[in-house]
Amino acid sequence: MKRIAIDMDDVMADTTIKIIQTINNITNSTYTYEALMSNDIKLKKTFYEVYLENNSFLWQPGFFTDLPVKEGAIEVIKDLTKSYEIFVVSAATEFPNSLSEKLEWMKKHFPFITWHNIVFCGHKHMIQADYLIDDHERNLVTFTGTPLLFSAPHNLHINSYERVNSWLDVKSKLL
Amino acid sequence: MKRIAIDMDDVMADTTIKIIQTINNITNSTYTYEALMSNDIKLKKTFYEVYLENNSFLWQPGFFTDLPVKEGAIEVIKDLTKSYEIFVVSAATEFPNSLSEKLEWMKKHFPFITWHNIVFCGHKHMIQADYLIDDHERNLVTFTGTPLLFSAPHNLHINSYERVNSWLDVKSKLL
Repeated sequence: MKRIAIDMDDVMADTTIKIIQTINNITNSTYTYEALMSNDIKLKKTFYEVYLENNSFLWQPGFFTDLPVKEGAIEVIKDLTKSYEIFVVSAATEFPNSLSEKLEWMKKHFPFITWHNIVFCGHKHMIQADYLIDDHERNLVTFTGTPLLFSAPHNLHINSYERVNSWLDVKSKLL
Repeated sequence: MKRIAIDMDDVMADTTIKIIQTINNITNSTYTYEALMSNDIKLKKTFYEVYLENNSFLWQPGFFTDLPVKEGAIEVIKDLTKSYEIFVVSAATEFPNSLSEKLEWMKKHFPFITWHNIVFCGHKHMIQADYLIDDHERNLVTFTGTPLLFSAPHNLHINSYERVNSWLDVKSKLL
């Protein structure tokens, strides 16, 4: 059975949507996910500068508890478990509070994936799998299997990887 | 640079020593680490039965905070980092409270290993490394590199792996 490693933030969870809401609250702004997914390079640059200056909320308790689930993720991942061994691999050890929150989130939304198949790490280059679905080039570049880049505002300029824009895309590629 | 994956409980930390102390407190017993490291099979059997009936403390906050560090672990692992890429890989996602406690423990005792190189997981068979130092056969049996069995009361009967009895043993094998 082939193995798929799946990232959490911005692949299973709409983390950027909550980040945008939080940044809008903190800085009294009106950024939207749709605008950040456009080709407005200047807007993105400004947003990520503001984000880097104001992202201490990532280390606060509670941020990862109520992340929205990506559209189609539950259904497609449930289908994938019938044909693949699934590991959820989240670069989360930078955020100690997030770890138990992410376990709870998984139990709530993906109860068919147990703690046995959840991995929290920093680097991902020691993960052995056939596929890695991830939104960050830094994780895909060292991966020894087939990398799939899950589209997110911060990776739209990257052309070096096979891209998936949605869980329906993942379904048609892997099932 | 070759990669070593190192287990935490009963390899870097004297987890069984704290378990024995806790079981002794709960059941008013006088088990010792030395006795469990002997060939007294009957004593071990009784101890592990009592342990399985009384191990809910593993899920309680605080248990993993103050584990003693294995003799020689800090010095030898620090030396290993000069010649190897080190990953600490702990099967800890079964114990949600342990995750942030284990990160704190690492920061306190092994500050030279950062969150980038700490992995919390359930199964370990998707970890790619040249060596795995672990006390559990279930982790070594699926490992694709060279497994090293770190001696602990529960594994003294296993003869299928190269064994290390201490961190000095690890040092003479790997350095």
